[in-house]
Amino acid sequence: MLTDPPTKNTICFSSSPQILSCGSVVGPKEGRGPLVDYFDAACRDELMGETSWEKAERRILMSAVDYCLNKARLQQEEIQAFVAGDLLNQIVTCGYTARQYDAPFIGIYGACSTFTEGLFLSSLLVDGQYRDLVLCATSSHHNSAERQFRYPTEFGAQRPPTSQWTITGAGACVISNKENDKGRNDRRLIVENATVGRVVDYNMANPLDLGSAMAPAAVDVIGSHFRDTGRSIDDYDLIMTGDLGRIGRSISVDLAKEYGLYLDDERYVDAGILIYEHTQNVDSGGSGCGCSAAVFAGYIWHMLQSGEMDRVLIVATGALMSPLISKQGETIPGVAHAVSVCAVD
Amino acid sequence: MLTDPPTKNTICFSSSPQILSCGSVVGPKEGRGPLVDYFDAACRDELMGETSWEKAERRILMSAVDYCLNKARLQQEEIQAFVAGDLLNQIVTCGYTARQYDAPFIGIYGACSTFTEGLFLSSLLVDGQYRDLVLCATSSHHNSAERQFRYPTEFGAQRPPTSQWTITGAGACVISNKENDKGRNDRRLIVENATVGRVVDYNMANPLDLGSAMAPAAVDVIGSHFRDTGRSIDDYDLIMTGDLGRIGRSISVDLAKEYGLYLDDERYVDAGILIYEHTQNVDSGGSGCGCSAAVFAGYIWHMLQSGEMDRVLIVATGALMSPLISKQGETIPGVAHAVSVCAVD
Repeated sequence: MLTDPPTKNTICFSSSPQILSCGSVVGPKEGRGPLVDYFDAACRDELMGETSWEKAERRILMSAVDYCLNKARLQQEEIQAFVAGDLLNQIVTCGYTARQYDAPFIGIYGACSTFTEGLFLSSLLVDGQYRDLVLCATSSHHNSAERQFRYPTEFGAQRPPTSQWTITGAGACVISNKENDKGRNDRRLIVENATVGRVVDYNMANPLDLGSAMAPAAVDVIGSHFRDTGRSIDDYDLIMTGDLGRIGRSISVDLAKEYGLYLDDERYVDAGILIYEHTQNVDSGGSGCGCSAAVFAGYIWHMLQSGEMDRVLIVATGALMSPLISKQGETIPGVAHAVSVCAVD
Repeated sequence: MLTDPPTKNTICFSSSPQILSCGSVVGPKEGRGPLVDYFDAACRDELMGETSWEKAERRILMSAVDYCLNKARLQQEEIQAFVAGDLLNQIVTCGYTARQYDAPFIGIYGACSTFTEGLFLSSLLVDGQYRDLVLCATSSHHNSAERQFRYPTEFGAQRPPTSQWTITGAGACVISNKENDKGRNDRRLIVENATVGRVVDYNMANPLDLGSAMAPAAVDVIGSHFRDTGRSIDDYDLIMTGDLGRIGRSISVDLAKEYGLYLDDERYVDAGILIYEHTQNVDSGGSGCGCSAAVFAGYIWHMLQSGEMDRVLIVATGALMSPLISKQGETIPGVAHAVSVCAVD
């Protein structure tokens, strides 16, 4: 079962694409969590004044994009590509958000790994001089995801302790190959490289335990990243998977040991654990496309800007299942992509 | 309503990425259509010996990939990235197919525009020297799409004349920046450039008339392409949209005139019209992610290889709706991406 992580899956960006700004907006439950001070906004209710949760999710995504563009003093007309995806069927949150913009739309799907897939593709567009300014965003909404992937929300199904709480939230970044003299960042955030993950299936089949299904993909891509770059966790102030939750993170640590990799307790964190307090009744932790996006765009951005961290590895993880395929008896494959971001003065 | 198509959305590939080979596999109905001789295989039944249509779709996609790799004399281990998407929720056809390969997986979604989105991103990865060999594929299956997007297949709902028949089929291409001395092509197929489309919504709201919803996006991106490149239809042996069907194609021709663009009857075709006979009871024509992919990988590939054509513009078109969002009263936005492919001796 245990095969060596593949090599040569890391793409280095030679022209140092920069993250000019980030925007992050979360829902009310996330606004009662420990990271609230780092987000641009926390909404008061899950509906945001809309008539459906799907429309509310769109509003949250658009709000994160607005914060992101405003902070970089950019108009939406300046954006040259919009790379985005979400968890809803046919990625309608992003498709309908893209309708508001003139920028070409590149729709992506990698379940909860979508954020780093987008960050990677956006950096690629910029690094290769194909585009100057690319907007990258992902979102999730607890209620819209819950009813699509699991049970009708009114049903009140009991949740097993392995389950994760899809977060309500969105994160957005602007990537550019040019200095932005309009924004006012303390430090420059550079996307150094990206390790693109393969699909890994350890025969987990429980759709209420996705952390266990995704952990092998996270370790696989971290292993690839270390082999390709010659780095270890010592080269990072933080490695953040997202969103494995407590159970998935614990499996990752054990599995990493079997690969001969060391992920220590202090520097290896998971976005799904960071975003909620233990007491918030979220079982194994948070999940959803918006989780690693919002935590990166809020918390990690601040840590890098403030100088508390200099280099982080973001490893968003996704479970590539669908409810229909699970009912057809299939196991759940996972995928993860790792992106290294460093801050320079 | 009528705004000028945007400019500067065209990305030129300076290093001439090549399509080394293509694979195309279709279902039984498509096998009775006029293009049957161009496809690598047409299946005898919709289930392909599997227990569900979803699993059959996966088998068709894998078969198209196998044909593609075999024709280029490539092993799957040589593939450095797999860029793919399909119509099923959570793009499970591609996710589960990717599980078979060691290559990093880049999941994309652009409804029926996914094929040119994939062709564009694959060419980008190769053109920027990030990867040497990229596999790009999309698929659709009539029965799996029908029950997901419209009615239970057993229900036998009456279809209005505006409706389109989602094709059963898949297309795959291998893109490379290197000559392949193992394959035996008559001509080299070069991906010249790609015009990435924005999301366009003309307030069409009928999910049984997607051709009308997508036509404005097709004309928008063709207009952008012509403005950016200074070309017209005279520079192409063929412009193929896909999949607008008869109604959508006719709207495209009219709308193009309003933009001052000329799309003539002989050189402007639609993949959804080409793939079926008039007599095959498909109403406005074919549709689905696999439609433009299979027609390109089969018919267009042969036309370019045989010297009957030298340069084509492929404009896959997608309707970014979901059944849920349509029920919430939303209109249907469209998106299209144009990719120019030429053959050189």
